Amino acid sequence: MGKEEIVAGSIWVPERSLREFAVDVFRKIGVPAREAKVTADVLIAADLRGIGSHGVARLPRYVSGIKAGSIVPKDASRIVKQTRATALVDGGNGLGQVVGRKAMEIAIRKARGTAVGFTTVRNSNHYGIAGYYAMMALKAGMIGISSTNAAPLVVPTFSRTAVLGTNPISVAVPTGKEEPFVLDMATSVVPRGTIEVYDRQGKEMPLGWAVDPTGHSTTNPRIVLEALAKRLGGGILPLGGEGETFSGHKGYGLALLVDILCGALPGAATALDVYADDRRANVGHFFGAIDVRAFRPLPGFKRDMDKLLRTLRESPKAAGHDRIYVHGEKSRAMERERRAKGIPLGPKVVDSLRTIGGESGVPWIA
Amino acid sequence: MGKEEIVAGSIWVPERSLREFAVDVFRKIGVPAREAKVTADVLIAADLRGIGSHGVARLPRYVSGIKAGSIVPKDASRIVKQTRATALVDGGNGLGQVVGRKAMEIAIRKARGTAVGFTTVRNSNHYGIAGYYAMMALKAGMIGISSTNAAPLVVPTFSRTAVLGTNPISVAVPTGKEEPFVLDMATSVVPRGTIEVYDRQGKEMPLGWAVDPTGHSTTNPRIVLEALAKRLGGGILPLGGEGETFSGHKGYGLALLVDILCGALPGAATALDVYADDRRANVGHFFGAIDVRAFRPLPGFKRDMDKLLRTLRESPKAAGHDRIYVHGEKSRAMERERRAKGIPLGPKVVDSLRTIGGESGVPWIA
Repeated sequence: MGKEEIVAGSIWVPERSLREFAVDVFRKIGVPAREAKVTADVLIAADLRGIGSHGVARLPRYVSGIKAGSIVPKDASRIVKQTRATALVDGGNGLGQVVGRKAMEIAIRKARGTAVGFTTVRNSNHYGIAGYYAMMALKAGMIGISSTNAAPLVVPTFSRTAVLGTNPISVAVPTGKEEPFVLDMATSVVPRGTIEVYDRQGKEMPLGWAVDPTGHSTTNPRIVLEALAKRLGGGILPLGGEGETFSGHKGYGLALLVDILCGALPGAATALDVYADDRRANVGHFFGAIDVRAFRPLPGFKRDMDKLLRTLRESPKAAGHDRIYVHGEKSRAMERERRAKGIPLGPKVVDSLRTIGGESGVPWIA
Repeated sequence: MGKEEIVAGSIWVPERSLREFAVDVFRKIGVPAREAKVTADVLIAADLRGIGSHGVARLPRYVSGIKAGSIVPKDASRIVKQTRATALVDGGNGLGQVVGRKAMEIAIRKARGTAVGFTTVRNSNHYGIAGYYAMMALKAGMIGISSTNAAPLVVPTFSRTAVLGTNPISVAVPTGKEEPFVLDMATSVVPRGTIEVYDRQGKEMPLGWAVDPTGHSTTNPRIVLEALAKRLGGGILPLGGEGETFSGHKGYGLALLVDILCGALPGAATALDVYADDRRANVGHFFGAIDVRAFRPLPGFKRDMDKLLRTLRESPKAAGHDRIYVHGEKSRAMERERRAKGIPLGPKVVDSLRTIGGESGVPWIA
């Protein structure tokens, strides 16, 4: 339920200008127009929904990946195996956003024919926010599923090194009058970005977020970040925290499940092998679309969804709280606000974007 | 990763005797032979895997449900809507195990034709352990998915009353030489049974397991159990605990997702309506089967699964730990042990089974 830090000295940039800037930068380094637009759209969606870590701030990393040759700028993805309801896509080492969008479109198209469609993807790259692809199913009256594996950051229960990624799971479900249900969650207890925020602010973390190189919980964000950077061990804990007392093994199980569906199933990299090769991240994705109408008429389903979500929101509140949220609600509110007010960018992000713009011959907008 | 309390004064009963006892009791109260066997098989599977709360100890509740007319003893379930890849099953208010097994068989059969098969079920009852059904897919070389909603016990983030069930998710994945991956997890931080154990032992719970009627974490198990029994509020926390600090909203999101897939999608009860009617629990289930061969040949997938699971188990251990588990491994080891040594039953369970046996005209075995 995205809580984002607005860094001191932030400026607010109109969505449209930021989008155009990103598109122009991608085009200058050889990404075709349509693909540049898709990639920018996924990045902007993250910024609008308050997940800045996966937004345009990440542009420099995509640019350096393309320049270094580890990301192929032109889409070379293709279906290598398919049935009426499934497809295996080779991402051709392209931009994860382009590959991801295409693969989710295939899942939705398959589901129009056979009620359910599933696509797995190998040989792809970082695809941005998982929720983007899951939400693509909503307009089709379908439940959308999206997941990806990622570079190792998460320490399995009773281990002391990061073996799995923060491996997010997103599921989007259509509703009637209520906002759609959009679960979009890393399977770790917190994202790396949150630990970086605590480090910048010099704050202690709660015990149960991350472990030091001995494999035990620490309150010191710097120890965790440095150990991760130097590959000394340590890392972020899975949802549920350290050990089994708060069921950290369940979060670990979910992260592993994602690695199975996104890595082992399509034959992409898994665990330590994700991003192990400088020239080929071999990230894997998993997409699904389930047509609600295969089970019941859409209007009745939407009415029941509205009723269920209202039941939750209208439940008695815990002392000191006046609102119960449903997943996707906060992000949607932020999206509306930011479409009107613009997207906040911290000074460091602005600097890095100005630099990237300069290097690519695209003037920075602000 | 089932950790089960072996109650003082427990006796060890051979699997076969306990199975026969359960079958005989079901038969005496009007459950046909085949359906009695299926139901007993699911209960015994739970006992063997160390999930006694879902094992034969639960027999009296099924018996009283049948006697009270809230569970129909003869299978009247039927497919009410289907496509090549999907089916909606009406459970006819029968035994959840019978309905569940049938619905999972349908999903697997559909997946033989279209690579993926999904079945949703409405108008069913408690179906035992979710893992039983997911594991049915393994022999077919498929990934099995199983989920059910349940009576409200779990308090959504920022609420102070239980609105959702412990809503388990199970996914089973075939392997080669390694034990299959079997994730079988309640989406709550702990099951109710664990709180009952702490209560019996007069121990304080860790903060972050359950909330009192104000909606805040308490260490007192009695307060939680009494408040739940009297419907005063309070209940178990979702995976991730209280509030958003440890991402309790993610566990809440998973529990809600289960209620959507198992309740709203088939048109079963959701949230507070599950078990709200004394004559009809209207529990819903969700089953899926995904044929690995739709994406890649099974042998290569199994090799990669083995490699992934070995990578995890062989990772450096946290200080003080000498083993990293993979999901399903502990349960499988316990299953082997209990097939040899028998199933432990506490004195209270033995008493209740003896009573049920006496009432049904089936002599207790021990």
